Amino acid sequence: MRKLLNAALGACLAVAMTAGAANADAPGAAPHQRFDLGDFRLESGQVIEKGFLTYVTHGTLNEQRNNAILVLPSLMGTHHRHDFLIGPGKALDPGKYFIIAADTLGNGRAISPSNSETQPGPKFPQFSIRDMVDAQHRLVAEGLELDRLLAVVGLSMGGMQAYQWAASFPDEIAAVIPIVSMARTSPWVTAIWESQRQAIMADAAWAGGAYTEQPEKGLRAAAASLETWVRHWDWMDKEFTDNRQVVGWLNERTADAAKNWDANDFIYQTRAEDLHDIAKGGDYAEALARIQARALLMPGSQDLLHPPADSRFAARHIPRATLVEIDSDQGHMASGS
Amino acid sequence: MRKLLNAALGACLAVAMTAGAANADAPGAAPHQRFDLGDFRLESGQVIEKGFLTYVTHGTLNEQRNNAILVLPSLMGTHHRHDFLIGPGKALDPGKYFIIAADTLGNGRAISPSNSETQPGPKFPQFSIRDMVDAQHRLVAEGLELDRLLAVVGLSMGGMQAYQWAASFPDEIAAVIPIVSMARTSPWVTAIWESQRQAIMADAAWAGGAYTEQPEKGLRAAAASLETWVRHWDWMDKEFTDNRQVVGWLNERTADAAKNWDANDFIYQTRAEDLHDIAKGGDYAEALARIQARALLMPGSQDLLHPPADSRFAARHIPRATLVEIDSDQGHMASGS
Repeated sequence: MRKLLNAALGACLAVAMTAGAANADAPGAAPHQRFDLGDFRLESGQVIEKGFLTYVTHGTLNEQRNNAILVLPSLMGTHHRHDFLIGPGKALDPGKYFIIAADTLGNGRAISPSNSETQPGPKFPQFSIRDMVDAQHRLVAEGLELDRLLAVVGLSMGGMQAYQWAASFPDEIAAVIPIVSMARTSPWVTAIWESQRQAIMADAAWAGGAYTEQPEKGLRAAAASLETWVRHWDWMDKEFTDNRQVVGWLNERTADAAKNWDANDFIYQTRAEDLHDIAKGGDYAEALARIQARALLMPGSQDLLHPPADSRFAARHIPRATLVEIDSDQGHMASGS
Repeated sequence: MRKLLNAALGACLAVAMTAGAANADAPGAAPHQRFDLGDFRLESGQVIEKGFLTYVTHGTLNEQRNNAILVLPSLMGTHHRHDFLIGPGKALDPGKYFIIAADTLGNGRAISPSNSETQPGPKFPQFSIRDMVDAQHRLVAEGLELDRLLAVVGLSMGGMQAYQWAASFPDEIAAVIPIVSMARTSPWVTAIWESQRQAIMADAAWAGGAYTEQPEKGLRAAAASLETWVRHWDWMDKEFTDNRQVVGWLNERTADAAKNWDANDFIYQTRAEDLHDIAKGGDYAEALARIQARALLMPGSQDLLHPPADSRFAARHIPRATLVEIDSDQGHMASGS
């Protein structure tokens, strides 16, 4: 899968890039950076106070300023989520591109319910995918002073943001590459998120969001559910010789989530997905038809969490779309890790 | 689906039945009956104290005593689970058959953690699908004095019991009809149950199983998860015009579960599924090959909870098997309600 992702992305970017290659840039540890949003007004009218985004960059902006790629993480993911795609010879080659790997609202690194000083926890206003993208646009246009991106690449929820970039800022991106993603959230996906939110809220430690310690049992139950939804039985039934091994495996997998996730951040990010619709309640096919960017849509052939049907529909309506289905028995994990 | 189920079952039973039709029996309210198991020894060696099964019968046993059909419910289902298949002109026609609709260990009607006087809640010993079947065999052989069943029919977990009947008592059943079911529990299915059990246990009210009131929030979270797993996106994304309608729908659907389910019963029944393997750890294909009964296997074509692959595998190995896939966009709910 990683190979296919790298190959397909590389080909798309080569086509989308109209100017020559930039100077090579030695790979190395990219320093974490911060962009202040100030008081950031959401589409709901509410305001996130003292907003900020965090990010790293790889590579160098070329003279034509046309090799910048924004990469956006999946739910609860950080700017490290795409590291497997970034490196010399990989699709996101810092020798060619100026790569901006950003955190996004609510992931615990950028401004989030878990780290806001003035609006902590349940006081944080609910943001949308469109708000995530507006904040990123501020980073790109004001912080990095870029008029245009070569591409926006995103896995899963990152892909939702990529679609939203193409819809919100059609003149400012050349290519959009959503992987195992969708341009609007379906009832199916909301049902999955809602059942996981309910698992977190079933834990009395959640305390209506005003917890002092993480509702660990609820978080682990939600993570156990998500661990299953992002897989596929074809993979799981090969991976384990005995069904009872799965209980221990789930416990191992969810230990990280319980340690690294914040319950409110999870709830806010999934609710942002629920609000996601590039047509904003209008005609979906028409909204897709207005996307001007070259689009490379890469759903997983057996993805149960974000089934490929949405990408197929989008590919029929986006004028310059290419559909490359990742043929994988790993479900949503076809996204590469 | 109900029509297909009725037609396919009817055809299978007509072939399996070697003798003529019995006298017609007027349909009407079937009185609830009880069969005492006494102290019931499980395959683990543990004993369920003061065990009993509950059941109803429809129709009349014919003179040849060869028209008895045992029908077994799905997880948390009762003997009413199959009412849609039972009636004049339906597959399970009381005019032709003597139908035994039984409750099964742990469903809250038969002996269960929730109603045991001497081993309540977490003191109840863990039973298996094989134990469920051994108890039913006692009801059939001793309680009803039947040497042989025309068929054992079951939906989902009821189908697991049907497979187990064919494996445990090969000389005593003519036909076995597992619907949306599997002959052994896969890692996939255990992962799904485990995440739902964790949601229940995340509710502090669960209290290690020693609750005084149901852990309602945990039960509802588990039920919300199961409501999604038993569906399919093709159905759900047609059913709702807006993804946010789903939250209210889940709340409505899970109100019944919270009212009617007992948390320990759910945990025990799902763990019984985890223990299910007609080969008991031996060679699965060989165990299937030893089934002598005529088998009608009816998986749902798009069932995510009990994917059809297992039924296809079973159909290749059971000597007298017929596979009729229920072509449905309703996932596991292809089972008919």
